[in-house]
Amino acid sequence: MIPMRHKRFDKMECPIARSLERVGEWWTILILRDALLGTTRFDEFQKSLEIAPNILTRRLRAMEEAGLLQRRRYSERPPRDEYILTRRGRDFSPVLLALLAWGNKHFAPEGESVSLVDARTGLTAVPAMYDAVSGRPITMRDFQFRPGPAANERIHRRYGAPKRERETK
Amino acid sequence: MIPMRHKRFDKMECPIARSLERVGEWWTILILRDALLGTTRFDEFQKSLEIAPNILTRRLRAMEEAGLLQRRRYSERPPRDEYILTRRGRDFSPVLLALLAWGNKHFAPEGESVSLVDARTGLTAVPAMYDAVSGRPITMRDFQFRPGPAANERIHRRYGAPKRERETK
Repeated sequence: MIPMRHKRFDKMECPIARSLERVGEWWTILILRDALLGTTRFDEFQKSLEIAPNILTRRLRAMEEAGLLQRRRYSERPPRDEYILTRRGRDFSPVLLALLAWGNKHFAPEGESVSLVDARTGLTAVPAMYDAVSGRPITMRDFQFRPGPAANERIHRRYGAPKRERETK
Repeated sequence: MIPMRHKRFDKMECPIARSLERVGEWWTILILRDALLGTTRFDEFQKSLEIAPNILTRRLRAMEEAGLLQRRRYSERPPRDEYILTRRGRDFSPVLLALLAWGNKHFAPEGESVSLVDARTGLTAVPAMYDAVSGRPITMRDFQFRPGPAANERIHRRYGAPKRERETK
């Protein structure tokens, strides 16, 4: 279900909030996961997700409107559509990889049920973030969020000045 | 608000679904964002997010239960708590970076309002995924999802066999 909310996050300046507005809702993210694995047809999505058809239809249309999927009719009689990832939908894959890595690290006490594997070597991969400009791994010590050129006052307040940092073990 | 849902994703085997069960809801992700920027105190979170206090309290307690934050009382009179990121909460940062990069690429036509910056050089960073084992950038061509050691039948069906792949421009 689309959750009720009191604030529209796409009005927020923060790119994280804007991303969440498009996808911060489980079914969309799981549909994107399945699409990245090659699923395109309505019945395939439904079988994989066990989602009610009307909810699936609504989600797929919303994703089409948000430019994540493109709908293509592949059969006229009966009428059947498939949903193809756009460049924007495919660009979401790092978010899924990061969720996978975090889930495998913290919520898989019985072992990994899904692994990312290096197809050349067969070895299990460990996804991590790096900076494509400098080539260096991203740590929150060496890299910082800063207000960008289009920042408004709220963004400057949130991202401008470093605050106290503490961490538990 | 916590959306009503018909399925509990943490019963699913998929680590992405399990991660979503913990955080796939806007406020949690935005609280984590603010916590990573150094916010710890209730009133600071509330001012930044403009969230109703009872909802914030509920979210913070849920995050504490999920092991993302640890609550610490820093004042007795009046009673005041701060919320410190745990290792698990801090490990979520690649997801936020990936959301930031995607938001900046696709939903910031007016320019970046928040950038990730290399603190050594001042240059804007471009977050991307690499494999910490091989050191190579992750592409969905060279790396694949595969069922892991703890995979059940559903996971094998979803991740086992490659399907058709198509992409629009």
